[in-house]
Order: sequence, then structure tokens, then C-alpha cells
Amino acid sequence: MTKTADHDAAVLYGYFRSSAAYRVRIALNLKGVVVAQRYVHLRDGEQNLEAYRWINPAGSVPFWREGDFDLAQSLAIIEYLDETHPEPPLLPRDPRARAIVREMAYAVACDIHPLGNLRILKRLTELGIDEIERARWSKQWIEQGFVAIEARLSQTPGPFAYGDQPTLADLCIVPQVFNARRFDADLAPFERIRQIEAEAMKLDAFVAAEPGRQPDAE
Amino acid sequence: MTKTADHDAAVLYGYFRSSAAYRVRIALNLKGVVVAQRYVHLRDGEQNLEAYRWINPAGSVPFWREGDFDLAQSLAIIEYLDETHPEPPLLPRDPRARAIVREMAYAVACDIHPLGNLRILKRLTELGIDEIERARWSKQWIEQGFVAIEARLSQTPGPFAYGDQPTLADLCIVPQVFNARRFDADLAPFERIRQIEAEAMKLDAFVAAEPGRQPDAE
Repeated sequence: MTKTADHDAAVLYGYFRSSAAYRVRIALNLKGVVVAQRYVHLRDGEQNLEAYRWINPAGSVPFWREGDFDLAQSLAIIEYLDETHPEPPLLPRDPRARAIVREMAYAVACDIHPLGNLRILKRLTELGIDEIERARWSKQWIEQGFVAIEARLSQTPGPFAYGDQPTLADLCIVPQVFNARRFDADLAPFERIRQIEAEAMKLDAFVAAEPGRQPDAE
Repeated sequence: MTKTADHDAAVLYGYFRSSAAYRVRIALNLKGVVVAQRYVHLRDGEQNLEAYRWINPAGSVPFWREGDFDLAQSLAIIEYLDETHPEPPLLPRDPRARAIVREMAYAVACDIHPLGNLRILKRLTELGIDEIERARWSKQWIEQGFVAIEARLSQTPGPFAYGDQPTLADLCIVPQVFNARRFDADLAPFERIRQIEAEAMKLDAFVAAEPGRQPDAE
């Protein structure tokens, strides 16, 4: 493995159930990069504690800290890792192939994931939306987003989202499938998405990143 | 200007008020890339017409079509343009600087923009959330997101989001400021964000991309 940067002093702040943190864990595992991991219990509100706000004023996870350099946003962290540890690459070389991988990653990160976030579900609760409607809300955006991704996947080589190696797209899709199961979304129509998950689960990098295997898992 | 690819056959499907399409228009203008533009009236539901679904089954804008290659997701389109037309670059060279630019772009594209989308506001209406609460909803996520971005901007060189040339971050921030004004968000606390907008408005590439200047503007 080509190592072009050391992250000896790096710390990743995460939460077992955060699917954005889950993406970064997979990237670290695929790259063979070991960093210290700390856990911020989102459901218990630890992101609002002064001690964490001092580290990350926005209170979000995942959050990367490396000396005086820090970074929020899972995709920014992953692309930074990909540029500083190019092997194995998380994006294909061809510009059109890269674009399609990014399209699928953003379809998860911009069109699905933000809508099912804990802060959104909390806000819906405050607005008087009951648990059944909140579950329907999450399910709806997942299923709608998966329709677009599955349509794209019908044009790409498998068994991963783009060819025989995992890319940024798989790093976003697999954690979103985990969330889809939590919200009881119907995965039956999404054959290629299910195939990606099955393929990913053959790799230690994905298995070790699963929420249930994290030290802070309940 | 270095031209490494021609997009003679390319068509951009957009909507004057879509802030994601607005990002792509700025990128095209900065790169000096001229493509055919078609307009899909989202508020009139043209994205659901069979004719458009045949082109883009997901019904989203912006949508890029170039022969048999097509692409959804504004950031994927912009990064594709940046890779095929490298000048002027929309990302700095240094990996940490690139990461910070991406962090700010994603702070808009993942944490703010998806929550104020037309489809979300429609869904909230169906759930019985009234106009006042819907406006509060949009405003809240914009202001909360801008707090995180402004904090980051306190550490970066100006007058743009990262230095003296516009980057991917500015392409996301400026259209989001336009939306912030529509939703009456309080911009007073966000000095650097307002400075970016003022700086951007000195450039034809940003001015020509404004919603009000598009042929489909109302």
C-alpha cells in the first residue's frame, strides 16, 4: 500500500449509528489507515456538551482532527483520505465514470441522508408529527432516492456500484441500506443495491465498520 | 483558456430558481463553456411530465445530457466540468485546502439545501404544517448551516471562501444566500458570507447566472 501521508495524530469523532461516520469508517478500513476514534452519543445529546462544542463548534459527526487541521463533512473527509492515501482509489480514473460514482454518492448524501437525520426527526416531533408519520417520512425519501440510484445502477458494471472494486458510491450506499432496514423501507425492488450490500459484506473493511461492531454500540 | 473537452452536444436542464442549477450555471460561466440550456418549470410540475421523465427518470434538475452520457447531481456535474475543463480550477491544489473547500460546499449541499427543497416543503404542507412554520423551517436550517460555514470562513483567506478566486464553495454559498433572502433569513451575523456574495457580484460569471436573469424567470 502506498502511504503518502501519516495521520498519527489524527482522531475521528463518530457515533456508531451515524451513517455519515459509517462511510468514513469504511474508507479508513479500505485504505488501511488506523486513527484514534472517539465517540459522541448523539441520541444522548453529547454533541451539545461544551466539551465537544469546544472541539467542533458545529457539533456534528463525523469530525476529523489532526493537529491544528480539522474537517467536518463525511465526503470531504473521505476525499481528503483518498487524495492523501491514493491506494486503493475510491474513484475511477475516467472523468465520466468518476462523475457517475459521484452522482450516486450525492444521491445518498444530498437527497436521502439529510432528510432522515436525528435533528430533522426531532424537529418533526416538535411540529407535532407523530411516530408513524415520521417513519413514513424517512421511508419515503429512502425509497424515492433508491429508485434514482437503482436506475443508474442498471447502466453500470457490477458487482459494486461501479465495477469490481468499492468506490465512494458504495461507501454511501451500504450505510444507507443499513438505515433503510431500520426504517423498514422496502428493499425488494432494488436488486442491484442489495447485490452491492451482499458484495460489501464479503469484505472485512465493510464488516468491521458496521454500527453494531463499534465500541459505542448499544 | 485550456479546453480539454468539447461539450458541443451538451444540454443542461435547469430551472431559474433551483439553487443547484444556479451552481452549475456559475461553473459554466467561469469556465467559459457554452451549452444549450433547457428549462423545466418545477413549480408547475414539469419535472413530472412524461416528456421530461423520459429524459431524466428521476425528474430532478440540474441534469446534464451529452450524447449518450447523462448526469444528475449539481456537484457531480461541476466536478465533471472541473476535470474536463481545468481552467480556472474550482478547487485549490493543496489537499487540506481542497478538503476545506469541499467541507463548505457540502455544508450547503448536504446540510442546508436538501431541507428547503420544493418537494420537502410540499410534503410538509401535506403533513399539515402551515406556511409560517414552513418558512421558519427553511430559515432555521439556513441560519444553522451558515453558522458552521461562517465559523470555518473565520479561518480561511478571503475575499472568496478560500482565497482570491471563486471555488466550489462559493458556487454553493452564493445561490444559498439568494435562497436565504427569499426565506427572510437573518444574514447580519454572517459577515464573511455577505462579503463573498458582494465579491461574487463583481464577476459577470455570477451575475449572469442569477435566477432573475434566466430566460425562464418569472
